[in-house]
Amino acid sequence: MAYSISNSSFLLSRPSPCHKTSLAATSHSFLSLHSATTARQFSSLSAARIRRGRVCAAVAIEKEVPENERPETFLRSADPAAVSTSVRARFEKMIREVQDEVCAALEVADGTGKFKEDVWSRPGGGGGISRVLQDGAIFEKAGVNVSVVYGTMPPDAYRAAKGNAGADNGGAKAGPVPFFAAGISSVLHPKNPFAPTLHFNYRYFETDAPKDAPGAPRQWWFGGGTDLTPSYIIEEDVKHFHSIQKKACDKFDPTFYPRFKKWCDDYFYIKHRGERRGLGGIFFDDLNDYDQEMLLGFATECAKSVVPAYIPIIEKRKDTPFTEEHKAWQQLRRGRYVEFNLVYDRGTTFGLKTGGRIESILVSLPLTARWQYDHQPDVGSEEWKLLDACINPKEWL
Amino acid sequence: MAYSISNSSFLLSRPSPCHKTSLAATSHSFLSLHSATTARQFSSLSAARIRRGRVCAAVAIEKEVPENERPETFLRSADPAAVSTSVRARFEKMIREVQDEVCAALEVADGTGKFKEDVWSRPGGGGGISRVLQDGAIFEKAGVNVSVVYGTMPPDAYRAAKGNAGADNGGAKAGPVPFFAAGISSVLHPKNPFAPTLHFNYRYFETDAPKDAPGAPRQWWFGGGTDLTPSYIIEEDVKHFHSIQKKACDKFDPTFYPRFKKWCDDYFYIKHRGERRGLGGIFFDDLNDYDQEMLLGFATECAKSVVPAYIPIIEKRKDTPFTEEHKAWQQLRRGRYVEFNLVYDRGTTFGLKTGGRIESILVSLPLTARWQYDHQPDVGSEEWKLLDACINPKEWL
Repeated sequence: MAYSISNSSFLLSRPSPCHKTSLAATSHSFLSLHSATTARQFSSLSAARIRRGRVCAAVAIEKEVPENERPETFLRSADPAAVSTSVRARFEKMIREVQDEVCAALEVADGTGKFKEDVWSRPGGGGGISRVLQDGAIFEKAGVNVSVVYGTMPPDAYRAAKGNAGADNGGAKAGPVPFFAAGISSVLHPKNPFAPTLHFNYRYFETDAPKDAPGAPRQWWFGGGTDLTPSYIIEEDVKHFHSIQKKACDKFDPTFYPRFKKWCDDYFYIKHRGERRGLGGIFFDDLNDYDQEMLLGFATECAKSVVPAYIPIIEKRKDTPFTEEHKAWQQLRRGRYVEFNLVYDRGTTFGLKTGGRIESILVSLPLTARWQYDHQPDVGSEEWKLLDACINPKEWL
Repeated sequence: MAYSISNSSFLLSRPSPCHKTSLAATSHSFLSLHSATTARQFSSLSAARIRRGRVCAAVAIEKEVPENERPETFLRSADPAAVSTSVRARFEKMIREVQDEVCAALEVADGTGKFKEDVWSRPGGGGGISRVLQDGAIFEKAGVNVSVVYGTMPPDAYRAAKGNAGADNGGAKAGPVPFFAAGISSVLHPKNPFAPTLHFNYRYFETDAPKDAPGAPRQWWFGGGTDLTPSYIIEEDVKHFHSIQKKACDKFDPTFYPRFKKWCDDYFYIKHRGERRGLGGIFFDDLNDYDQEMLLGFATECAKSVVPAYIPIIEKRKDTPFTEEHKAWQQLRRGRYVEFNLVYDRGTTFGLKTGGRIESILVSLPLTARWQYDHQPDVGSEEWKLLDACINPKEWL
């Protein structure tokens, strides 16, 4: 039984690397991957409907099934790559360990809040675990989700993704290409305006070697990132955060931090505001031009760096005294977070258009947010400094 | 000096009537029209960029110029249709009168809040007046905007809009078609959870007869609507609101109310939630298959019905006692309002993608909103009843 990853207008809007970038998309948005399995095939959709960008309306999403218990693995038992030494299996194991570690650290930091867990599977394989802590002592809303998706991608997208190598299979019509994807995704919104919001997301994507296209290779890639969104700049915190990201990067390649820092600044850009949603961190996508074991190690290092990068900041700032004005400014910045996620974030927009577990997709949104007409912070104020750094990204190290 | 209405991926996603529907789009979103003038021509954009849906990134928007005083008219003095008897001039006069009337009525109802006014123009002609009342006694945020746009549309879009009549001009290459658009747009968010949010928007669109396409006719159409978004169903209020809409419709055509009521239910649909944002009202677009004077009269009647449809409800509900739970539910519904406007509303998404006066476009967003993980109202509760009516639209009369 095969499921095709679907056909949102987002996917269609980026014909070349779009399947790579959107499946392995971004942000808290790996969440959206569990929405991506569908029983309809891309090829069955008329060109006219595709042109109209209405494809997603035609996509029927297979409903997730709630589960009472976490399974040992979400890998299909019939999956030849389900052996514990495969990258698939090791990546799933890693993200589930990180989910446990991050949630445990957050519960300790919060003191009173506890994570509520939802587990689900899909009949065709794969599934996920959503964990949400809401209205704790320290955290307004914290979501840490993992998911695993089996699907198929249209052959054209596969050809585009691998740069046409093996595209010519003697005129035979290529069938859909099965793929596997797994990821962890998290957004943490604390209550205190001096404690920053954190987002991280790491994901692995792999296609099967298509049986009907001889010579066409198996494809894989990694994506992800960790970024910080404070309402006020506390330079010592931002430096600490970026230095942990740099340390994780430097263990693997000295070019990674500058490259992925810039990628992060470019990605989390709210075009209509001309500003970034926060103070960045690292972001990468479609990464496959290094040794696969090295990149698995790199993604693992980054994911394992979340706790040391973030928890010390929370410990320091969770009880900082604040005024109503500080809180109102945080709420305005939360409004920007909502704007970015609903308007630009690839995973969210993809997930919303293809249906799926909406509560998991939108757990990234803050508990509360604010929009005030024509708000302009006073030049030189702390609010202005934050805005300035969102407009003109800085080097923190 | 000509400006082309631009080329957002929204426009491109609906090749046939898209220019009609998006220009004369919807919702509070006529606001987005002032963002639509641009010095770049559609035809200068490569097909590849259009396919990638990245066109908007290439659009340079002419910046609006703040004005100290409201001009008598935003019509160009050189505009042959600037005579006071033209539909353009009468529509502009009507929407400016309605802006004055609605703002005056809202200030009286609020008691303390006053509207702040921003006036602007664009060098190529047109302009607008934004009025916002924020944090009044009764209203959390109320925006009432008018705007006038002069632009040009690509000849292909013009041909599509008029169903190909006059498309054949003997092989001569048709130039861009100048158009005129004017509208009023408003969203009113009261503080009290028992006082509903109101949105209305009325707009008129007209093209010139293209000089280089002999026989091609001038095109025009009307669009708009008024809809109610309560957090709780007070049946007497919903009936009152719908009965005023029906009365306005029935004066012109007995088929209007049932047709435009359904159109409204269909339009304000949050697909990823499977629910409407509120309890509807009327909505229509691309309306040109009736006598032009009749439709001008109809749009005028609808716009003039805003005060009698809404103010009596506000007067009754503005001081209703409420609990924190009522307020939290209102905030959750405000979150849905944000989701609809940022994800689906054609005018907003068009406006955000093409740039322009962001503060006017986003004045539709509530002052505050809330997203709670997996919130499910108890079956049979007042919250559940509202949600049920948003999922299954009802006949109120």
